[in-house]
Formats: sequence, C-alpha cells, structure tokens
Amino acid sequence: MSPLSEQAGRIMAAEMAEQPTVLRRILEQGAPRIRAVAEQIAARKPRFVLLTARGTSDNAALYAKYLLEIRLGLPCGLASMSTTTAYGARPDLRDVLVITVSQSGGSPDLVDSTRAARDAGAITLAVTNNPDSPLAAVSEHHIDILAGPEKALPATKTYTASLLSLYLFVEGLRGGDGAEAAVLPDLAEELLARGDEVKQLASRYRFAERMVITSRGYGFPTAQEAALKLMETSYIPALSYSGADLLHGPLAMVDNISPVIAVVTDGKGGEALQPVLDRLRGRGADLVVIGPREQVAAASAGFELPTAGLPEELQPILEILPLQLLAYEVTIARGQDPDAPRALAKITETH
Amino acid sequence: MSPLSEQAGRIMAAEMAEQPTVLRRILEQGAPRIRAVAEQIAARKPRFVLLTARGTSDNAALYAKYLLEIRLGLPCGLASMSTTTAYGARPDLRDVLVITVSQSGGSPDLVDSTRAARDAGAITLAVTNNPDSPLAAVSEHHIDILAGPEKALPATKTYTASLLSLYLFVEGLRGGDGAEAAVLPDLAEELLARGDEVKQLASRYRFAERMVITSRGYGFPTAQEAALKLMETSYIPALSYSGADLLHGPLAMVDNISPVIAVVTDGKGGEALQPVLDRLRGRGADLVVIGPREQVAAASAGFELPTAGLPEELQPILEILPLQLLAYEVTIARGQDPDAPRALAKITETH
Repeated sequence: MSPLSEQAGRIMAAEMAEQPTVLRRILEQGAPRIRAVAEQIAARKPRFVLLTARGTSDNAALYAKYLLEIRLGLPCGLASMSTTTAYGARPDLRDVLVITVSQSGGSPDLVDSTRAARDAGAITLAVTNNPDSPLAAVSEHHIDILAGPEKALPATKTYTASLLSLYLFVEGLRGGDGAEAAVLPDLAEELLARGDEVKQLASRYRFAERMVITSRGYGFPTAQEAALKLMETSYIPALSYSGADLLHGPLAMVDNISPVIAVVTDGKGGEALQPVLDRLRGRGADLVVIGPREQVAAASAGFELPTAGLPEELQPILEILPLQLLAYEVTIARGQDPDAPRALAKITETH
Repeated sequence: MSPLSEQAGRIMAAEMAEQPTVLRRILEQGAPRIRAVAEQIAARKPRFVLLTARGTSDNAALYAKYLLEIRLGLPCGLASMSTTTAYGARPDLRDVLVITVSQSGGSPDLVDSTRAARDAGAITLAVTNNPDSPLAAVSEHHIDILAGPEKALPATKTYTASLLSLYLFVEGLRGGDGAEAAVLPDLAEELLARGDEVKQLASRYRFAERMVITSRGYGFPTAQEAALKLMETSYIPALSYSGADLLHGPLAMVDNISPVIAVVTDGKGGEALQPVLDRLRGRGADLVVIGPREQVAAASAGFELPTAGLPEELQPILEILPLQLLAYEVTIARGQDPDAPRALAKITETH
C-alpha cells in the first residue's frame, strides 16, 4: 500500500467543515422562500405524500417521511421508481404531493418520474442544490438547499442541508416558523470541533470486516446514511437496520466480532430502542452509541451529543456529523483516500 | 467445529419442499376466499395503500407494492411503524387500505399499528398464516395464506405463500381470476428438484466474507429476501440493493472479492438491470445470475429459471426458491445448522 498523500480527503474534510455555514445560510436566506413554498402547497391540501430519491438523498427523504407522518399525520410512501420508469405505471396522483430530493437535480430517472407524477395530477416539489437543474425545471415547486457547489464524491453538506430544508418545509406546512432550528449552526460547529474524539473511535474500526448500525424512529435515517457513508468511503460492508428489524433476523449475524453502532435519539425513538440495546449488550456486542451522555455511559464507547432541550426531530441534523467524520477517519486509517472512492460518479445516470 | 448432526437443517428442508403443495392449496382452496375479500375491498375504492410488515413479511409487502403500483396504479407506501407505535402519529387514513403482513399474526407492534390504522379510518387487511391470531382479530379483513404450521426459524414456505396470496388479492382487485398462476406449483416442484445445481453454486460462497445481491423491479423483493435468508442462516453479511442504488455508492465495495448475485427477471425489471450488470462485469465482479438462460450464459455462473411465457409479476414466486436452497446449502457447507440460527425467535416481540 502506498502512503497516503497529504491531499487525501481534503475535499471531503472541507465540505464537512462548511456545514455550520450552510445551515446558517438556509436559516437566514432560505427559510422565507421555503415557507412561501410550504404555504402554497398547504393550500392545496395534499392527502398523501410520495418521496422519490436515491442514495444519500433517499436517506434525507426518509427523514422527511418521519416528519410528515409524525408532525403532520400525512400518510407517506417512498416511491419505487422503477414502477414508473421501467414499467410505465401511471397511478392516479390527485391530492398527492410528490417530493423529489436530489443534490444535482440531474438524474434522468428522477426527472422522468417527477414529470410523470406531474402529468398524473400530483403536486410536485423538487428539493435540490441546483435551481437550474432539469429536475427543478420539471417540478411545479422547488426548494434550493443552498449548500454551494459540492465537489466531494461522498455527499455530506448536501445531506444536512437537505434535512434542514425539509424540516423547515414541514414546519411551514404546519404553519410554524421553525425557530427551534436556530441553535443548530452553533451546535454543529461544536460537534465538528471534536474530531479528536472521532479519531479515537475510528481506531476501533480500522480492521473491522463489517459493521452493523441500528436506530429507531428519527434516528433511523441517520443509521442508513452512516452505513452508506462508511461503505462508499471505506468499503466496509455496513448494514443498517431499524432496531425492530434487527431482532427479526439479522441479529444472528451480530456477535463479538461485528461491532454495532447505535444512534440513540433523546426522545421516543431512543426509548423504543432500549430493548434492542439490552439484547445487544446481552450478546456481548461491541456497542458504540451516538447519543446523550447517559446512553453513551451504558455502552462500550460513544460520542456524546448535546441534545438537552433540542426537539427529537432536529437531532438527526447533528447526529450524522460525528458519523461523517467517522467514515472519513476510518478511511484514512485504512490508508485509503476518502476523495477517491473507487466507483462513485457525482451524477449517477440511472434510467 | 463439531461435525454437523444428520438432523441439521431437516426442518427447514422439509418446509422448503412443502412449497409446491402449499401453492396448490392456495390456488385450490384459498383463491375463492381471497377473491371475495378483494371484491369487498375494491367496492370501497381505496385511493392509497400502506403496507406494514417486518422481516420476511416486509419483503412480501414490497412485492405487493410493486403489484399495486404497476398493475393497479395505486400509490403505495411501506409504513414506518414506529411513527405510530413510538410516536403516536394518528394520520387521516380515510380511503387508505392498510395491509399488514405477518406469518404469526402475533407481533404486538403490528397489532397495535393495525388497530390504530382502523381507528383512523383505514380499510384494514391482515395477511397471516393464522386466522386465530390477534392481528386477524383486529383487522376488518383477513387472508389466510394456508401454509400450515411453520416450525423452521428461517421462513420459507410462508414467504412464497404470502406472495401468491398477495398476487391473487391484487388480481382480484382488478377483477381478474389469477389463472396464470396455475402453472406455479409444477414449476416450483421442478426447481426444487434441482438441488444438486444449487449445491455446486453454494461451494462458491463457503468462504465468502460478504455478498451483494441486486435486482430491479419485481425481482428486488427477491434480492431483499435472499439477503435476509443468507444472513439469518449462514451469518454472511449479505447486502441487497436495487441496481440503481448500487450505482449510487455501494458499488465501491464490490470488487473481485465480493461476489454478486443478480436476480434478473424476464421482463422490464431485467432489462432495466442490464447497465448495472455491464458495470459489474466491467469491474470483474464474480457475478451469479438467477434468471433466464441467456442471462445466466453471460454471467460467471447461475441458475436458470423456466420463465418462458410466465408473466414477470409471477416470477418472484419461483426466483426465491433456488436462493432459499442456496442459503440452506451455504450454511451446511460452513458447518452450521440452518435449523438453529443463533438469535432468531419465531414471534418477535417488538413494541
């Protein structure tokens, strides 16, 4: 293995570090426009929401699904895109809000399925990092996540920017102003300054052959995104499961050689995860917790989140930060360059 | 490692072998009742469908999602159960059909979320292997999948029984009789007789540290279920991705040490998967195809399916059979007992 260049990971590191600035920009410049879009859509009284996305954006869409179901009581589904793009399904989408999340706004299958949804009567909303993208053009409404050009192949700042934008949108649908999000940029800055703690955690996983990541409720999209980030940078097979699904089968795979990371939100999702954590501890799993202090104390190791007073639904925007850093540090520790994943292209041309 | 007892895997093997009989039973005895349920529900004109399930049943629910979207044009979502059970979300579910799939019908969270859905105005349908279960009792409608008592911990016959029951139900919603399914029991019998071919395939994976399984469209639930089956019996981390998602990141993980199994349906899903197969071949992946003859011929190895003339939407009921056998044979080859997975309980008590 050749030694890593000093440039390795610079691009990903710079974009992770930009996140507090991006969150501030959304709150200051993006929020009024997001609220206006939300008001227009609320007036149409959608009864059902379909979310369409791939990769990292799919995890942001999953976060929105929890928000929409819990905060608004709107039944939601994640679209199986091939039903439209491969099979030509043309469902009746009157009263349906179709939200398509895509950093680039350029993936042809997302553009096609969004156009088809609009033709089928849906209210369409694109959430992208590019207002000039084909996806923004084809959608009736658009939210710009204002993350600035993303150059790193593993998406980081566009993920947290999508989460905050979607949070503000859902709050807007409820007639709220999302003021509770104001603390996020400062908290994100504090967390990102704790890189040394993450470096120490990363040393645990340098030789790991696989990892399991679990959570429940609002933390589940974080688990999914952390697994994706770890796989696409370090190539460690990282399997994520909702805590309940983990008990329905894959638990057989977890033993003292499979480290487990649990994302424990401070709230109902974290409470619902407790029986799963007990089972894991009972099996002697190496359990690392990302969560509040007392949860970290009951695990093998962890990273404490400053969740006190922060509504559970906002925690995912912070939870992912140490996990992005972890993916980065594990990759460096394995002698690989996080900026040069083997197989990633920035706009994935799936049809 | 102690030598495996001759009894190892007997229970799972017996239940896999029962599948042609179970499929015949559903077609002969179950179909009229399924059609009657479908007629009652069609008269209520549901506009959206939410599917609720866990584990193997979740993969059956995903199959139903494809059927409902493609064959009926009904927008669908898979429920995030914790939004109801942990967060107490109470969405407005008028005009919504909620289908809960559960072999045992006994999991408390499924019973609770189905009761909540019914209270919220949903049309509720339980699909179970136990008409006396709490889930059947709490649902307005019930379909019995008639698989007979399931004793093996890894679910096999209840999976194919759920698929066929859901197929007949969706055909019933369309006013069809599902006559095209009549060939399935004989074809299933033929496939299950080809155990020697599967044994040969299994030898490839005896020492595999991880596996990737991919598909698109109707074959995707098969990929998910095959991954679950492999993990819960052999403990090999098996990651399943829709072909499109695979290109959005996890492809970095696939190299010549990660074998890939592709489930290639004979139809539009298989066509949409071709660019992914090309990429995988280009990366030198060890690619095993479950699919029609010409697809197997273009791969490193595979298992041919007799798909000629069989509608694509019925192929998943056959595709999973060689993959169940594969999970069984790989487990035996690794000196483990498929009937004694380390951590599975038959009714998983998630709340």
